Amino acid sequence: MEIYRGRRLTVEKQVIRLPDGRTKEKVVVKPGDAVAMLPVDGDDCLLIRQYRFAVGEYLYEAPAGTMEPGETPLETARRELIEETGHAGGTFIPRGTIFTTPGFTTERLHLFEVRDLAPSDEGRKDEDEVIEVVRIPKGEVMAMALDGRICDAKTICLVHRCLG
Amino acid sequence: MEIYRGRRLTVEKQVIRLPDGRTKEKVVVKPGDAVAMLPVDGDDCLLIRQYRFAVGEYLYEAPAGTMEPGETPLETARRELIEETGHAGGTFIPRGTIFTTPGFTTERLHLFEVRDLAPSDEGRKDEDEVIEVVRIPKGEVMAMALDGRICDAKTICLVHRCLG
Repeated sequence: MEIYRGRRLTVEKQVIRLPDGRTKEKVVVKPGDAVAMLPVDGDDCLLIRQYRFAVGEYLYEAPAGTMEPGETPLETARRELIEETGHAGGTFIPRGTIFTTPGFTTERLHLFEVRDLAPSDEGRKDEDEVIEVVRIPKGEVMAMALDGRICDAKTICLVHRCLG
Repeated sequence: MEIYRGRRLTVEKQVIRLPDGRTKEKVVVKPGDAVAMLPVDGDDCLLIRQYRFAVGEYLYEAPAGTMEPGETPLETARRELIEETGHAGGTFIPRGTIFTTPGFTTERLHLFEVRDLAPSDEGRKDEDEVIEVVRIPKGEVMAMALDGRICDAKTICLVHRCLG
C-alpha cells in the first residue's frame, strides 16, 4: 500500500510473510537507485561539503546523485560529477554497489572511482543544493574517514574501496 | 507534517528554507538512532546473514539494532550482540558514528568494535528476524568488503574503521 509518493521517493507499507508463516507489516522507502563516486586528481580527492537538512549538519561527502529515467549508472556519474564539482571525468572505474540501509530502504548506490579529471563548467547546476567543492589530499581523506570527520556512510565505503 | 508513524520509524514532510530564500518540501524518514558493531574473536569476525525484504536479498551484515527508550549506545550494543549472535562482549571500543543516507533520513549509527567475546544464550531472540551467525577470518572479511560480497554500507564502514 502506498503511503506517500513524491518526486524523489515513495513510501510503501508492505505485508511480509516470515519463514514460520506469521505475517508482519514493514514500511519500505524507495528513493530510486543512485550513484556515488570518489574523484581522484593526482594526490588529491574532490569532495563536496553540503548542509544536510535531515541531520542538521554540514557533511563532507562524495559527489552523488539519483539516476534519471533511462540513464545508466555511468551516465548518471558523468552528469553528476560535472553538476556537483565542475569537473568532467575521463575514466570511471566501477567499484561495486552498496545498500545504504537495507532494513527499511531499497536504496542501492553504484560506486565509481573517477580519474583523469578536467575542469568543465558545462551543465553546472545549483538548484536546491548548496555545495562547496573541497580538494583534500588522499592521506587526509583516509584519516578523516577513520577519525569521524567524514561520517557519511557512502563516502566511507568509497574511501575503503578506492583508497583502502 | 507527519505522513506516517509506525513502531520503528516515522515519515515527515518538512518545508525547508534555502539560503537564497526559496522554500522546498522534503520528506524525512526518522527511524531513531541505532548501533552497529564488528565482533572480533581472535583472527575471526562474527557476522550475521539475513534476508532483507526491502532489497530482496540475503546480506552479510554486522550485528546492529535500534536503541530502546532510555538506552545508551553501549547498552544497546551489549543487548543486540547477545540477541543476534549468542555472544556477550567483554570490551566495546567506540568507533564513532555514521549517517547511513543523510539525503532523506536522520538515521545515525553508533559504531563499536567488540572484543573478548564469550558464548551466552541469555536473551537470544528470534522475533521477526531470521538470522544465521557466520564466523569469517578477518582477512576474508576485508576481501569481501572490497569485492562486493559485503555490500551493506554500515558493515563496510565498520570494516574500514576496525580493520582498515
